[in-house]
Amino acid sequence: MKEVIFFDIGHTLVTGAEASPRRLIGAALDLKERDIKRIGKLIMTENAETPDDLACLLSQELPHISPGKIFEAVRTVWEEQYTCVELLPGADKVIVRLLQMGYTLGIISNIWHPFFQGFSAKYPDIVSLFEYKVLSYRAGVKKPSPDIFLKAVKEANIDPSDCWMVGDTYELDIAPARTSGFRTVWYVIRPDRERDAIAGILRGELPGPDYAISDLMELVPFFENRL
Amino acid sequence: MKEVIFFDIGHTLVTGAEASPRRLIGAALDLKERDIKRIGKLIMTENAETPDDLACLLSQELPHISPGKIFEAVRTVWEEQYTCVELLPGADKVIVRLLQMGYTLGIISNIWHPFFQGFSAKYPDIVSLFEYKVLSYRAGVKKPSPDIFLKAVKEANIDPSDCWMVGDTYELDIAPARTSGFRTVWYVIRPDRERDAIAGILRGELPGPDYAISDLMELVPFFENRL
Repeated sequence: MKEVIFFDIGHTLVTGAEASPRRLIGAALDLKERDIKRIGKLIMTENAETPDDLACLLSQELPHISPGKIFEAVRTVWEEQYTCVELLPGADKVIVRLLQMGYTLGIISNIWHPFFQGFSAKYPDIVSLFEYKVLSYRAGVKKPSPDIFLKAVKEANIDPSDCWMVGDTYELDIAPARTSGFRTVWYVIRPDRERDAIAGILRGELPGPDYAISDLMELVPFFENRL
Repeated sequence: MKEVIFFDIGHTLVTGAEASPRRLIGAALDLKERDIKRIGKLIMTENAETPDDLACLLSQELPHISPGKIFEAVRTVWEEQYTCVELLPGADKVIVRLLQMGYTLGIISNIWHPFFQGFSAKYPDIVSLFEYKVLSYRAGVKKPSPDIFLKAVKEANIDPSDCWMVGDTYELDIAPARTSGFRTVWYVIRPDRERDAIAGILRGELPGPDYAISDLMELVPFFENRL
C-alpha cells in the first residue's frame, strides 16, 4: 500500500532567516501589524519569481509607500532568503532512510520563491527526493487552509488517510492536516511558540497528533515499526 | 474537605538569576560538569545560612581549589541571588484568589537560603500566605526525591490525593509529585527545556499531568470549577 509522508520545510527540514519575509520586509518598510499580515499572505500565495514582480504586487497593496523603497526592501530580503537556507542536522539521513523503506515523500510548505530556490540550489540532491512539492506560492493558497492539503492529496492521487504530515507548528501543520484526514507527526522543535497548543492538548481540549518527536531521527524507528 | 496546593518557586512564581547557583558558582570557579553536579546537590540540601558556611562546605568538596577563590565566588553569587528575585506577572493575584476560594497553599522548592531570603524580603506579604514551606536546603533533600513530597504530606497532615503540585518542570515537579500520589498541574512556561517530556507524553509513553496551563491565571477558573 502506498503511503506518502509530507514534510513542512521551514524549521522541520531547514532553518534560515531569523524571521519570516513579511516580518523582514515589514521592518524594512516600518509597516503596521495589519499591513504586515496582509503582505504576508500575498508574499506566500502569489507566484512571483523575481523580486521586481513581487515589489510591483506589494506597491499596489501599499500605495502610501514609495515604490523605490519597496523595490529596495524586497530585493534585499529576497537575496538574504536565497542564501540563508541550512539543512537541519540529520534531515538528509532521515529522508533517505524513509525512501529506502518504501515511503513516498512530499512537501507541503508556506514558502516563497527565493527560499525554495535557495533550498533547491544548495541541496539539489535532497529536494529531488520529494516526489510531490505543494508550495503555497505556486498553489495560490497557504496553510492552515484545508485547500492546500486537498491539493496535495489530489496531486498524489491517494486517500488522505494514507498521507502523513510532519511539521513543527500545531496551528499550520498538525491541526489542519488532521481535519483534512491526514495522520500527523508533530516535531516539537520550537515549543516556546506552541505553549497554548501544548497546554490545550494536555488538558484534552485540543486533539493531539498521532505521534510526536523531539528529534527528527525518531521518525526512522517510528515509520520502520509501521511496516 | 481540605486541599493543599503546593507551588514550585523558581519559574513558577518568580524569576531571578539567568542560571542556577551551581552553574554560576561553577562558572566562577571554572568547574568540571561532574563537580558542578556534586556541588549543586550540596548547595540545595545543606542548611547554610551564610555565604561563609556554604563556602566552608564547598571547600571540603573542592580541595583542589583555593578557599579564598571559593569564598569570593560564593559571596558574589549569594548577593546576586538575594537581589534578583522578581514575582512573575499575576502570581500574587492567583495566590490571593486561591486563598479566597478556601484552598490552603504551600511551597515545595529546590532552593538555597539567599534566594528564599530575597523572595521573603521583597515579597513578605506573598510569602506569608503559604502555610507550608518545604524548602530543600532545610529539608535536606531535593526534588525529584519522593522524600521531599512525603515531608510536605506529613507537615500538612493530609492524604497525598488531596495535594496538588503546580510546577514548570516535568522531571522535578510533575513526575515525582504524581508518583507520590499528588495531583498535578503543569505550568508550560519554558517548554524549550521540556521537549523530550512533551513528545513523550504526546506519544503516550509518559503519563501526563492532571491539568496544564500556559498562563498562571488559568489556575483560577480551574480550581474554581472544582469547588
